[in-house]
Amino acid sequence: MNHASKKYVAIEPPFTFKNGDKFDDPLTIVYETSGTLNDKKDNAILVTTGLSPSAHICSSSEETSPGWWEKIVGDDKYIDTRKYFVICINSLGSCYGSSGPASFKPDTEEKYGLSFPEVTIEDIALSMKPVIDELGIETLNTVIGPSMGGMTAMSLVKQFPSITKNLILISTAASCRPFSIALRSLQRLLITSDQNWVEGKYQDKNLPLDGMKQARYLGMITYRSPTEWNQRFGRKRSDKTHRAEDFSSNRFEIQDYLKKKTDGFVSDFDPNSYLYLSRSIDTFDLMEGNESLEEIFKRFKVGRVLILGVDEDYIFPFECLEEVFDAFKNTAKDVSIKKLPSLNGHDSFLVDHENFGPNIKKFLEA
Amino acid sequence: MNHASKKYVAIEPPFTFKNGDKFDDPLTIVYETSGTLNDKKDNAILVTTGLSPSAHICSSSEETSPGWWEKIVGDDKYIDTRKYFVICINSLGSCYGSSGPASFKPDTEEKYGLSFPEVTIEDIALSMKPVIDELGIETLNTVIGPSMGGMTAMSLVKQFPSITKNLILISTAASCRPFSIALRSLQRLLITSDQNWVEGKYQDKNLPLDGMKQARYLGMITYRSPTEWNQRFGRKRSDKTHRAEDFSSNRFEIQDYLKKKTDGFVSDFDPNSYLYLSRSIDTFDLMEGNESLEEIFKRFKVGRVLILGVDEDYIFPFECLEEVFDAFKNTAKDVSIKKLPSLNGHDSFLVDHENFGPNIKKFLEA
Repeated sequence: MNHASKKYVAIEPPFTFKNGDKFDDPLTIVYETSGTLNDKKDNAILVTTGLSPSAHICSSSEETSPGWWEKIVGDDKYIDTRKYFVICINSLGSCYGSSGPASFKPDTEEKYGLSFPEVTIEDIALSMKPVIDELGIETLNTVIGPSMGGMTAMSLVKQFPSITKNLILISTAASCRPFSIALRSLQRLLITSDQNWVEGKYQDKNLPLDGMKQARYLGMITYRSPTEWNQRFGRKRSDKTHRAEDFSSNRFEIQDYLKKKTDGFVSDFDPNSYLYLSRSIDTFDLMEGNESLEEIFKRFKVGRVLILGVDEDYIFPFECLEEVFDAFKNTAKDVSIKKLPSLNGHDSFLVDHENFGPNIKKFLEA
Repeated sequence: MNHASKKYVAIEPPFTFKNGDKFDDPLTIVYETSGTLNDKKDNAILVTTGLSPSAHICSSSEETSPGWWEKIVGDDKYIDTRKYFVICINSLGSCYGSSGPASFKPDTEEKYGLSFPEVTIEDIALSMKPVIDELGIETLNTVIGPSMGGMTAMSLVKQFPSITKNLILISTAASCRPFSIALRSLQRLLITSDQNWVEGKYQDKNLPLDGMKQARYLGMITYRSPTEWNQRFGRKRSDKTHRAEDFSSNRFEIQDYLKKKTDGFVSDFDPNSYLYLSRSIDTFDLMEGNESLEEIFKRFKVGRVLILGVDEDYIFPFECLEEVFDAFKNTAKDVSIKKLPSLNGHDSFLVDHENFGPNIKKFLEA
C-alpha cells in the first residue's frame, strides 16, 4: 500500500500578510505526502485544496481512512503514487493543523479567533513555498488546483513563476463573480447571525452549528446542479409522514436528502476558518494591479496547462475557465480546456472521478 | 385617471380545502378592479399574482400609490384600462385582505396562525371563482398568470374549463422542480429557525424579521440572474470602509446592494403567509392524478395561449414553459412561446416592462 506521511513546517516570524499585518507568532503549515520523491526530485505533484478539505488527500498504510480525493490519488490510481510524489497542503487559515483563527495563541489556551490576520489566497500560496523548499524540490512536476485551490495554484505560480513545469486548473477562476460573492456573503451572514457565534468568540461546546448547517444547506444547493436533481429526485415524494402545521416535515425526497445531509452534519470545520477562507475567495483577483491576465500568464514559466470544468457550476461558471484559457492561449502557452459532461455542478471534481480521473492521468502521462 | 375600486367577497362556510379540511369560518377574498366592465361583459382580464403582491396592481384616482405592475397596467398602458376591465385578486393565504394565517379568528383578537388550513394552488384558484361570479362575468377575456400566478391560472382553467377565452402564462410551470423546492425549503427553514417565529405564534411587535431578511437575501440572489449582476456590479468595490475582523463589512458593491435591500426590508408581509404560499408552490402539480398535460389541456376551452419567459430563471427554468408549450401544441391549441431577452431572471416580468409589455399588448390586440 501507498506509503505516506504527515508533517509540518514551522514558518519563523515575522510573516507579512498581504494586507500588511506583520505576524509575530510562528506559523505552522501541515502537509501530507504520498509516494516517493525520486532522486532527480522531478516527480512531485502539489495539490492545492478547495475551501473544506484537509491535507489528507488519500489513504495510506499509515492512515487508512479515505482521503478527500481517494478515488483519484493512490497506488495505480489516476494520479499514481507509485510514480508520483503527491504533496497536499492544508491551507493557511484552515483548521486541520495549519495556522488559522482556530489555532491557539502561543503558550495560551486561547484561540486567535478574529484576531488572526486576514488571510488571502496570496498568503495561502506564499505559505506553501516553505513546504516545497523543505522537501528540497526546485521545480514541481505539476500543480493541480481545484476550486479555491485553483486560485491558490495561480497565485503560487504568479509569485514563483518557475515553481512548476505543468499546471492543472479545475473549476476555478482568476477572480470570482458577483453571483458567487452574494452566495458566500449569505453563507457567512448565516454563520455570524447564529447567536452562538458571539463575534467569533464561541465556545467549543457551544458552536454556531445552526448557522453552519444553514450555510451548508445553501452550499449543497449551489454546489450541485439542477439537472442532477431533476434526474435523481424529480418530484419523488418523501415516504415520511407530514403534518400541515409542521413546516419542517417534508413532502419530497429532495427535502429528505437535504435534511439528512445537514442534520447529520457535525462538522469538525471551524466556523471562523470557514469565514476566513470563504472571504479569501471573494477578494482574490489575479489581475490586481491592473495587469491583464495575458501579461501575468506571460511570466508563468510553465510548460503545459490543462483546464477542466463542467456546465452548471454556480460558483465558478465555465466562462471563468474560458477567460483563463483564452489568456493562456494568447501567450502562446500549450493549453487545453475541456468541459466535462458531469452533472454534479461545482462539486463534480470531488465525486465524478470517472470523468476527471482519465483526463488528469492522460495529461500527466503526455 | 383610471377609475378603480377595492372590494371583497365573503365566501360562506363551509369551504372545503383540497386537503379535506372543512373550514367552518367565512373566508374573505379581496380584489381590485381597474377600468370599466362593458355591457357585454367580455372585456375582463384577470391577473393572478405571484407570491408577494397584493391586489393593488396599478394606481388609480382612488388609490394613487403605484401598484405592483404599474408600468404594465393603466390608462393607455400595455394593458389599457380604458379598454379592459382588469381584476386582480389577493390570493387566499396571503395577508393583504384575503383570508389566511394572518387573519383573525371570528370575534377574537387571535390570529389563525398555523391553525389555518393548508392552502394549495387549487384552493387559491377555487376561491377566485366567487369574485368572477360576483362581477357577473361568465367568460373572462384573458387570464394572465405570472410566476405562482401562472400555476393559479392553470388550476383555475382546469377547474373551470370555460372560464376564459385566452390565457397568458409567464415564468411559471405546471409543477416545480427539485432545485426550486430546495431553495424555498431553505427560505422557510430560515424563517422557522428565527427564535421570534415561536411555531408561528409570534407577536406583531416581535416578528421573525431576521429570518425574513435572510429568506429575502436568498430570494434576491435566486430571483435575478448572474448575467445581470456581472454587467451591473462586476467586481466593483464598495466605497464603504471595512475592517478585517468585521465580517459584516462589505468589500464589493454587490454586497452593499444586497445589504441595503435587506436591511431596509421591513416587510408588511406576514411570515406565516409567506410559509403557506411558498409551500403551495412546491406541492402544486397540475398533472396530479396521473393525467398527462395533454389530457388536461385538451379540456381547456381556451382560444389562444401565450407563454412568456426568460433565460436564467432559477425558480421556473424556461424548460418548464417549453413543457407547457409542447403539451398545448399537441392538443392543437393556438399557442405561442417566446423567450424574452431579459437579464433579470425570474423577476424579469416585474421589472422589464419594455420586453414584457409589448408582447402582452400585441397578444391582447390580436
